[in-house]
Amino acid sequence: MTELFDQIDELRRGAGRVAVATLVSTRGTTPRKEGARMLVGEGGRILGSVTIGGCVDAQVIEESEDVLASRAPRLLELSLGDEEAWEIGLTCGGTIEVFVEPLATELLERVRAHAHAGRRGAIVTRLDGETGRKLLVLDDGTVEGSLGDAFLDERFAGETEATIAAGVSRTLFLEGTRAFVEVFAPPALLLVVGAGHVAMPLTELARILGYRTVVLDGRPRFASRERFPAVDELRVGIPSELVTAYPLVPSTALVLVAHDYKYDLPVLRHALATDVGYIGMLGSARRGAAIRKLLAEEGVGSAALERIRVPIGLDLGARSAPEIALAILAEIQVVRGGGSGLPMRARPPRATPA
Amino acid sequence: MTELFDQIDELRRGAGRVAVATLVSTRGTTPRKEGARMLVGEGGRILGSVTIGGCVDAQVIEESEDVLASRAPRLLELSLGDEEAWEIGLTCGGTIEVFVEPLATELLERVRAHAHAGRRGAIVTRLDGETGRKLLVLDDGTVEGSLGDAFLDERFAGETEATIAAGVSRTLFLEGTRAFVEVFAPPALLLVVGAGHVAMPLTELARILGYRTVVLDGRPRFASRERFPAVDELRVGIPSELVTAYPLVPSTALVLVAHDYKYDLPVLRHALATDVGYIGMLGSARRGAAIRKLLAEEGVGSAALERIRVPIGLDLGARSAPEIALAILAEIQVVRGGGSGLPMRARPPRATPA
Repeated sequence: MTELFDQIDELRRGAGRVAVATLVSTRGTTPRKEGARMLVGEGGRILGSVTIGGCVDAQVIEESEDVLASRAPRLLELSLGDEEAWEIGLTCGGTIEVFVEPLATELLERVRAHAHAGRRGAIVTRLDGETGRKLLVLDDGTVEGSLGDAFLDERFAGETEATIAAGVSRTLFLEGTRAFVEVFAPPALLLVVGAGHVAMPLTELARILGYRTVVLDGRPRFASRERFPAVDELRVGIPSELVTAYPLVPSTALVLVAHDYKYDLPVLRHALATDVGYIGMLGSARRGAAIRKLLAEEGVGSAALERIRVPIGLDLGARSAPEIALAILAEIQVVRGGGSGLPMRARPPRATPA
Repeated sequence: MTELFDQIDELRRGAGRVAVATLVSTRGTTPRKEGARMLVGEGGRILGSVTIGGCVDAQVIEESEDVLASRAPRLLELSLGDEEAWEIGLTCGGTIEVFVEPLATELLERVRAHAHAGRRGAIVTRLDGETGRKLLVLDDGTVEGSLGDAFLDERFAGETEATIAAGVSRTLFLEGTRAFVEVFAPPALLLVVGAGHVAMPLTELARILGYRTVVLDGRPRFASRERFPAVDELRVGIPSELVTAYPLVPSTALVLVAHDYKYDLPVLRHALATDVGYIGMLGSARRGAAIRKLLAEEGVGSAALERIRVPIGLDLGARSAPEIALAILAEIQVVRGGGSGLPMRARPPRATPA
């Protein structure tokens, strides 16, 4: 996403026309890479450093020429063998679809400005019927453009809101029509309250997973750059006051490792009034019960209290601080990704997706 | 461990006597920090930068004076409140025991030399009866010293072998006698075959968890320092030949992400003949079944085939390469640590340890 945004300005400066190819569906293969894309200029020149990869690139370049000449978008269906699939980062063969269209920068610029402000949005592209028509859906309720039919616009805009919340681009099939929903979102936020021994490996691991990491603590001795050299933001102050400056939204994970009632309680009160995606607190089951009891006495309902994950993390037999950090990130991932936590090989086979 | 080893030479050069205090048991509190230690010189001077922490340090310093004067080791039992426990990195209050004894460097030097050669060993210290007597147990079968009784030596040496394999220091209670088994081991090895897109975040995450990381691949274009700047060893060659140079022992995790039968099969044949602790392979259930069938046709038994974890990782709903890497490390951790993979808060309460 970032690279495409960076390229928009450059592309506008250039004179030639550009085709954009997007991987919109992968069947029978994991991990999904839907949303991968490449840009092809006139004469088949690849723009930027990103391609879809392997044997797909050559096909895309060939089709791009036609798409730019005819100005008509086109949906390619490609069957890949295991080796070909592997080259582009899929784990086994299957059928993929790549949508090739002339690049239009207007909606991209809208969604880019929105994402730069820390918000989420999506561009919906119709893949059949009036192919290539687009709808812009932002998380502030804005809907612009059209798929060519007011009823379809309404149906897709509604479903797109859920897709934006999930944060993963995908192809939707509604009312007999397929459209690719490309989600544009800032990195997910991991907000850690308490700059202790678990916070250090937790933020280091989270950075590799692409999170923006923020650590809040009242004690400058703990919340120091020496201890947290790579964290995105490190703030010293009263956590329950600092925390209000951050978006406690479904993509955000809030982790309390301060282990101090006077820090934890006001932060929890604030967080439970938001739709933050994950609330975890370091501590024993006994301590969790005590915190829940205090909040219940203040009138917090049981459904809200169930949102507090304490003891925190998946049961990985963790002992050291880095292992506990791993267990916490694994639990956040399960909440976001919807897994069972059990070994993959023990999982019953998935139904084949439509 | 490393710091203590570094200090031995320095301590031998110094003239004064030194007391060593080791946290040998923690009850009713997690995470366990058994094996944490500090060194106290004459006059109550703390040596080195490591202490057990918080209010414990002052008590240890006080007792060390007596231990050095009397040359008699001593077991301290300390009750910690939640706040005190937190200061030393435990998540809630409970009872801890700290063993304070005059430092004897001879066995430490033996085990240090052994660990530097990539091997594991343990020092067993008796905590009651003939307090402070020691037994050295190495993973090559060496047993030296004595707990003061040949039968006890035999029983503890046997159990210590299992503790060494598990890689975690702990207090054992056998035949009415308690002894602390301190395991000295080189960092666990993560051996990755295949320098692809999952190997990069996998080795980055593993380093934070303290693994030594090695990546093997036949393709120099993939196995490059540019792609793997921080990996401990990066080797280009035939993986099934390279892999024989590494210790495939219970603490080692072997991860195959090359996704190429001609790489995977000979590596698997070799690994299944060892007691390597974890064997995981990237791929679908279908691909796993195909690999198992090929190996079964060569006469590999079903128990051995069950050791191959494919699809790899815990089911965390992972999609991106870093998420898959997280799921793999979580599975390795579950195998090492013995967890269920389910959320900690869903886990039934543990029986109180004896």
